[in-house]
Amino acid sequence: MAGKVRVGVIGATGMVGQNYVRLLSNHPWFELTYVAASPRSAGKRYMEAVAGRWVLDEEVPAAVADLTVGDAGDVDAARRQCDLVFSAVEMDKEAVRELEERYAAQGLAVVSNNSAHRWTEDVPVLIPEVNPHHTEIIPFQRQNRGWDRGLIVVKPNCSLQSYLPPVYALLRAGYEVESMVVVTMQAVSGAGYPGPASIDMIDNIIPYIPGEEEKSEQEPRKILGFIQNGRIVPDHSIHISAHCNRVPALDGHLACVSLKFRSRKPALDEIVRIWRTFRAEPQELGLPFAPQPVLIYRDEPDRPQTRRDRDAGRGMAITIGRLRECPVLDVRFVALSHNTVRGAAGGAILSAELLKAKGYI
Amino acid sequence: MAGKVRVGVIGATGMVGQNYVRLLSNHPWFELTYVAASPRSAGKRYMEAVAGRWVLDEEVPAAVADLTVGDAGDVDAARRQCDLVFSAVEMDKEAVRELEERYAAQGLAVVSNNSAHRWTEDVPVLIPEVNPHHTEIIPFQRQNRGWDRGLIVVKPNCSLQSYLPPVYALLRAGYEVESMVVVTMQAVSGAGYPGPASIDMIDNIIPYIPGEEEKSEQEPRKILGFIQNGRIVPDHSIHISAHCNRVPALDGHLACVSLKFRSRKPALDEIVRIWRTFRAEPQELGLPFAPQPVLIYRDEPDRPQTRRDRDAGRGMAITIGRLRECPVLDVRFVALSHNTVRGAAGGAILSAELLKAKGYI
Amino acid sequence: MAGKVRVGVIGATGMVGQNYVRLLSNHPWFELTYVAASPRSAGKRYMEAVAGRWVLDEEVPAAVADLTVGDAGDVDAARRQCDLVFSAVEMDKEAVRELEERYAAQGLAVVSNNSAHRWTEDVPVLIPEVNPHHTEIIPFQRQNRGWDRGLIVVKPNCSLQSYLPPVYALLRAGYEVESMVVVTMQAVSGAGYPGPASIDMIDNIIPYIPGEEEKSEQEPRKILGFIQNGRIVPDHSIHISAHCNRVPALDGHLACVSLKFRSRKPALDEIVRIWRTFRAEPQELGLPFAPQPVLIYRDEPDRPQTRRDRDAGRGMAITIGRLRECPVLDVRFVALSHNTVRGAAGGAILSAELLKAKGYI
Amino acid sequence: MAGKVRVGVIGATGMVGQNYVRLLSNHPWFELTYVAASPRSAGKRYMEAVAGRWVLDEEVPAAVADLTVGDAGDVDAARRQCDLVFSAVEMDKEAVRELEERYAAQGLAVVSNNSAHRWTEDVPVLIPEVNPHHTEIIPFQRQNRGWDRGLIVVKPNCSLQSYLPPVYALLRAGYEVESMVVVTMQAVSGAGYPGPASIDMIDNIIPYIPGEEEKSEQEPRKILGFIQNGRIVPDHSIHISAHCNRVPALDGHLACVSLKFRSRKPALDEIVRIWRTFRAEPQELGLPFAPQPVLIYRDEPDRPQTRRDRDAGRGMAITIGRLRECPVLDVRFVALSHNTVRGAAGGAILSAELLKAKGYI
Repeated sequence: MAGKVRVGVIGATGMVGQNYVRLLSNHPWFELTYVAASPRSAGKRYMEAVAGRWVLDEEVPAAVADLTVGDAGDVDAARRQCDLVFSAVEMDKEAVRELEERYAAQGLAVVSNNSAHRWTEDVPVLIPEVNPHHTEIIPFQRQNRGWDRGLIVVKPNCSLQSYLPPVYALLRAGYEVESMVVVTMQAVSGAGYPGPASIDMIDNIIPYIPGEEEKSEQEPRKILGFIQNGRIVPDHSIHISAHCNRVPALDGHLACVSLKFRSRKPALDEIVRIWRTFRAEPQELGLPFAPQPVLIYRDEPDRPQTRRDRDAGRGMAITIGRLRECPVLDVRFVALSHNTVRGAAGGAILSAELLKAKGYI
Repeated sequence: MAGKVRVGVIGATGMVGQNYVRLLSNHPWFELTYVAASPRSAGKRYMEAVAGRWVLDEEVPAAVADLTVGDAGDVDAARRQCDLVFSAVEMDKEAVRELEERYAAQGLAVVSNNSAHRWTEDVPVLIPEVNPHHTEIIPFQRQNRGWDRGLIVVKPNCSLQSYLPPVYALLRAGYEVESMVVVTMQAVSGAGYPGPASIDMIDNIIPYIPGEEEKSEQEPRKILGFIQNGRIVPDHSIHISAHCNRVPALDGHLACVSLKFRSRKPALDEIVRIWRTFRAEPQELGLPFAPQPVLIYRDEPDRPQTRRDRDAGRGMAITIGRLRECPVLDVRFVALSHNTVRGAAGGAILSAELLKAKGYI
Repeated sequence: MAGKVRVGVIGATGMVGQNYVRLLSNHPWFELTYVAASPRSAGKRYMEAVAGRWVLDEEVPAAVADLTVGDAGDVDAARRQCDLVFSAVEMDKEAVRELEERYAAQGLAVVSNNSAHRWTEDVPVLIPEVNPHHTEIIPFQRQNRGWDRGLIVVKPNCSLQSYLPPVYALLRAGYEVESMVVVTMQAVSGAGYPGPASIDMIDNIIPYIPGEEEKSEQEPRKILGFIQNGRIVPDHSIHISAHCNRVPALDGHLACVSLKFRSRKPALDEIVRIWRTFRAEPQELGLPFAPQPVLIYRDEPDRPQTRRDRDAGRGMAITIGRLRECPVLDVRFVALSHNTVRGAAGGAILSAELLKAKGYI
Repeated sequence: MAGKVRVGVIGATGMVGQNYVRLLSNHPWFELTYVAASPRSAGKRYMEAVAGRWVLDEEVPAAVADLTVGDAGDVDAARRQCDLVFSAVEMDKEAVRELEERYAAQGLAVVSNNSAHRWTEDVPVLIPEVNPHHTEIIPFQRQNRGWDRGLIVVKPNCSLQSYLPPVYALLRAGYEVESMVVVTMQAVSGAGYPGPASIDMIDNIIPYIPGEEEKSEQEPRKILGFIQNGRIVPDHSIHISAHCNRVPALDGHLACVSLKFRSRKPALDEIVRIWRTFRAEPQELGLPFAPQPVLIYRDEPDRPQTRRDRDAGRGMAITIGRLRECPVLDVRFVALSHNTVRGAAGGAILSAELLKAKGYI
């Protein structure tokens, strides 16, 4: 245990919070020493606080069951018990923004699932394999805000994590992308708990997820942006059309993607080669949650499938398939990631590992 | 009953055949007088032939239950008992092609669900609201083949019927379409019975349907083509990229469509106006299966939904929603049709009605 | 329209209320002239009040869309606009009890879906084919409470309607039942909207429905009871063990039933004959919602199936199958009814028809 | 690897065979050295033989992918490469019986999933926690048939494994059971691949599984029987009524059970105590696949749930809940086991471990 970073989860009783608790169990670098939630849960044992609300198929880890739940609003309590918090609070954006800043001001590293700070200019939206260098904004962030050791990083919307890493691999290999048409088929767990009613999902598809398309179209621009004068400047050169559907699957966001390159266009086998050999900083650094490989390209004509491929790389890999020419844009493919692991708690833990490896915590 | 056209269904025991039997019940113009299937079923009462194989939720219509099943290969028997046959046989393409031609040569009108004749140059692929004028190829067809009263018309692939009618409405209004990216989410009944195993569809999406994308990309070109020198010349000016997925819904093919216009681009409200006022020859002629309206545009942000909208217009209407600008092409929308009604037996019955109304039978 | 009874629905915006609105459309005896809901909805057009909350696959009937929603607490308003109300309010039991009594005191007939009055001694729990004679309690009810024309009748729990009518048919034929073991598999719509989360129902069975087993075991005793001294005395001679499960189906409650007779035991073919010839007062009176036949026995080994049989008799019939000897009790079978039609709004409408035919309204 | 028993799987390409391959990966006592299937697959690499037919969500284990598939009918080949075979062949019963006997005659231990030998008097039907002493029939079996080292043991029907171990625990504690009414809700994987069509399982329950009820009612009698004069004599003192339903879940057979005791009846808390402390020979021997505990009793009112509890004890434990009085028999409860692990390949591997530990192989 010696040398482990003490971490906390705020908003620990909700579905995302539960996933943090599950995934942090036996983490080699982090020890979960603190959980916090609303005042209603504060003071209870974690096991009691989630009684009747634990939605995961796995059991509550024994080491966490007996932790006393703190009040998420009590930053001092958190500071005494941990050095980093994963934020999974569910409040209105303004309140989240303010709360996360209070944690950071008290010297805590905040890694957030919430969308509140995604468009804050000095807060990086991290996919550790795509923009690990955006952590370089942290010194500016601290300077701007007068924070000593505190910091805030956030993770992006879950659905784009199925297709942005494969697209980024092509960008990094020198193939500029001009535009993308993406249609997603997203699992019900993406909506949290309870999420969609079964009466709406049995024998049905809902072609709409409020707010999801805007996020899917805008956030990639910030993730692919660059740091200039202490802020992250979005890259507006890429045009994305996202259509997001809710489908009756538990976990896993599947995306059908058509891509147009700006000038040079790679051959199909070159694209597969790029994907299969793609490694990024998390892999180089050997981060515990970094999947090896990140991108799995499957040759079978009917893969990736939501249920069969979502757990690849313990839910952290992205599985791709069906690469072929597109009669309208240039190429097209299918990609899948696990929305509650890679797209939420797992991705945030990987970001925290990156911060640790790079010395920010 | 006087004056009703006597019709038959060949391949009457399969799932598509069952749908014909169901939909022809109490038809005002057609009387189902003949059913045929493989030699194994021939000679049995229809009720016995489908015992344990009837997959529809509705019961076998009483009027058909006692019909004696004929042998689909016995064209003479069919000729004695009906004037038009709906072909739902399941054999290899070459055999289907030959069989359907034998029926036509014997003076029967053949309206087929099978794909065998879709690329025969003098056989029209009909969506009655889109290309009713393609029936004008019939005189050439008869002349080419030395048929007297016989004829063959076919219906296209089911999935394109969700999006081609709305696109055609725009074409007819003078807005040329250059390209389309379409992603479909198709119900399991589209694969016939038994179709996908439940073990493959529970908590899963399969991003592949063999042969479906090719049909979806090519058949619209023939449907939008023109007659020249006794053959139908495809329109190659429209480029379609289709990605077809199998989803866990019973009936209804949903499509997410992005469109690019060639030159003039209609405003969004103009498009809605075009759709809402669209009427075509089946509506003008008052054909019994012609939905009024054909195209239903819904204003709610989360419609059409597969289960809730597939039965619109008794399964013959196409429901559209979510029209909006597309950041990559020009506009985008969602469209839905019922694959076993509009996309199969119902669409074929509407074609037969069109043939009757225009004097071809 | 002349002579139609003017009826209202209170709690008209909820899921059960929506079903009333749907089923009362074009009713030959009743005209829906009034809808009421919470003060929040009061004053709006019905169409507006249910915008975004209409969960049925069918559209809002045009005749109801423009009705102005009243306040369910305003009994005077109801009295001016209708003579009978269907109560589908969702409040705590005490409040429902008091509200329904206020309606009755004002001269309105109240037919309720709510469980609040099910154990009130002078209120009948009606299944019109089983205990139509329990309406004879109404004069006592009025006398006890000083009501002039008002009355209250209620419908029982939905799940028991799958198996009590078949069991009653045997009782009526003179075969006393000593005990029953019943295991139900109940559709999600039985829980109202939103009901079970899809995350709990995909690839899952939940072996528990709060409160359901108690109702299933106790309510039959009252339904099978007799009137004595102005109150309904339950029949405690029958012992029921009910195990209720929630399963991923939209509509339809399926029950596996094992029965033990007290003394005389009918042969299996005698039981089938009793079921197939069963007719009761609603059938004799030709009530509009009375299915003909009430009990459908199917010979196929794999019926009834939830989806394929729930709509039998327009959702008002009970479908039975698989009658066979039971190695532990005497006989066993499977039975199915449609929970939101026979088991809720449809059953209540049939009760109202019975009241009308018998002169109580 | 030294000292590991070399094992083979015959019928290795089917769904049960695939589960053996998956579960035997890295087994501490057994090394999978041989796979066999039909002549059509013989000679191929295993990876090729299952291409397009591998239905499990996990990948083919690397160590097996390159094994050359043998011909299941070639017993000599098996004998050269392994000492025990798991039989998962799918042929008619007579052929299976004959084939398994040929393997045994050649000195191989045969552990079979097939039902062919379940009623052979000198073949034990093993649930290792229930009747491990039935292995004592093996010397008689060998003697009867002139086998040297060969033997045949089989596993019972999958569905009874959800409820027989809990019932057995009560029997062993001295509480005789007179009768049981069991209603099962069984997952689709129990039918093998492809199994039920999705068109039959979406929004549906099928109240019938051919042959399943007979097996569920009869096999427990043999499992609970005793050895006399070299044969296993069934125990006819227990009466079982089983009603088996197919439900839309992937894995996991759930059973609702009502029990009647013959004379002494344990209190509810006594039953829970018996279950929670139940240990049997596999646990005493520390067999690798023996779950610790075998029986998990959960206090929550809504457990066990199919998806959430099927993987308990790595799919080898039985989860029980909802113990309560039964108004008709004595007590009732819910129990669940994983049908393709405990109920099939996993249970058979545990039987093989028992044979090894007891010196039969």
